[in-house]
Amino acid sequence: MQLTREDIITTAVKLLNTYGFADMTMRRIATTLGVVPGALYWHVANKQALIAEIAASFITDLDGSSTLELVANLRKILLTHRDGAELVTAALSQADSPTWTQLTEKFADALRETGADESARRIAAETLVHLVLGTTVMDQNRAQLEDLTKTSTADDADESTFADSSLLQGAEIIIAGVRQVTP
Amino acid sequence: MQLTREDIITTAVKLLNTYGFADMTMRRIATTLGVVPGALYWHVANKQALIAEIAASFITDLDGSSTLELVANLRKILLTHRDGAELVTAALSQADSPTWTQLTEKFADALRETGADESARRIAAETLVHLVLGTTVMDQNRAQLEDLTKTSTADDADESTFADSSLLQGAEIIIAGVRQVTP
Repeated sequence: MQLTREDIITTAVKLLNTYGFADMTMRRIATTLGVVPGALYWHVANKQALIAEIAASFITDLDGSSTLELVANLRKILLTHRDGAELVTAALSQADSPTWTQLTEKFADALRETGADESARRIAAETLVHLVLGTTVMDQNRAQLEDLTKTSTADDADESTFADSSLLQGAEIIIAGVRQVTP
Repeated sequence: MQLTREDIITTAVKLLNTYGFADMTMRRIATTLGVVPGALYWHVANKQALIAEIAASFITDLDGSSTLELVANLRKILLTHRDGAELVTAALSQADSPTWTQLTEKFADALRETGADESARRIAAETLVHLVLGTTVMDQNRAQLEDLTKTSTADDADESTFADSSLLQGAEIIIAGVRQVTP
């Protein structure tokens, strides 16, 4: 059977969800697919390119009719995958990331409701994306540490609800702020 | 000569700055100090505890007479160390991190100038810390990727200036927003 780029992405995401981001290696992807590592490079240039494609596939599904809905839905997407926030942060850190542009434009568009000018909306959009990624990276790190050290407690669900509500309140502060810088 | 906790922290920070966060291993710290790995554990409980102590030592130096000065100075501290933002994010992700509490309290105190109530200031403080960490993690990731792939260009200095000014504008939006939620 012919190896496709989709097979590689699907397998990489399965390994991500099972072993975490640090252990999603090209070698392990190749072994799981029963090919030699070199075979992967016919389809993806390098690991960075693979990470970028995986993040792009996650973010494709993001929609929402308001800024707060986008915030909540981005968080949901990141939480769907183990180390989701860390993988997406790594992808968006790449120079000229098309996913970073696409993501911040979605938020800047939603912020039109504030009446702020484009430059203020762009800054607010970047601030919102950093807030969602930052909050979720920390929550996923913490959950993983608790798994490792078995200090996990019964109120995990409560903590996650709390993080969500803090996140939305933080987003509301940013939205209120960008309204203020309106000319 | 007696091994001290300070020796371990100093050596770990040197290895961080030379090899990066992923390669700052307990084994390498022990080898550099000429001791067996087990000797480290008389002084630090585990790698997480070491990361927490290093982050605490970085953040001790943070001061500023306004919120924007705190933002700029926190960024400067993170940029002083290779992977500084990633290490501090890992430390602050630990459950009940005293450094997270200390850091967000510093920002919440500086935000008194806005007249906002404590709960709004706390949320805004967390949002500001996520913004600084998120921006700086991405900038440091990007710089490292550019080193690896040798796509580094002559306008690195410009990019860093741009990131600083976006960061401060983002912080100003958060400060303007928290003024709005004042009762």
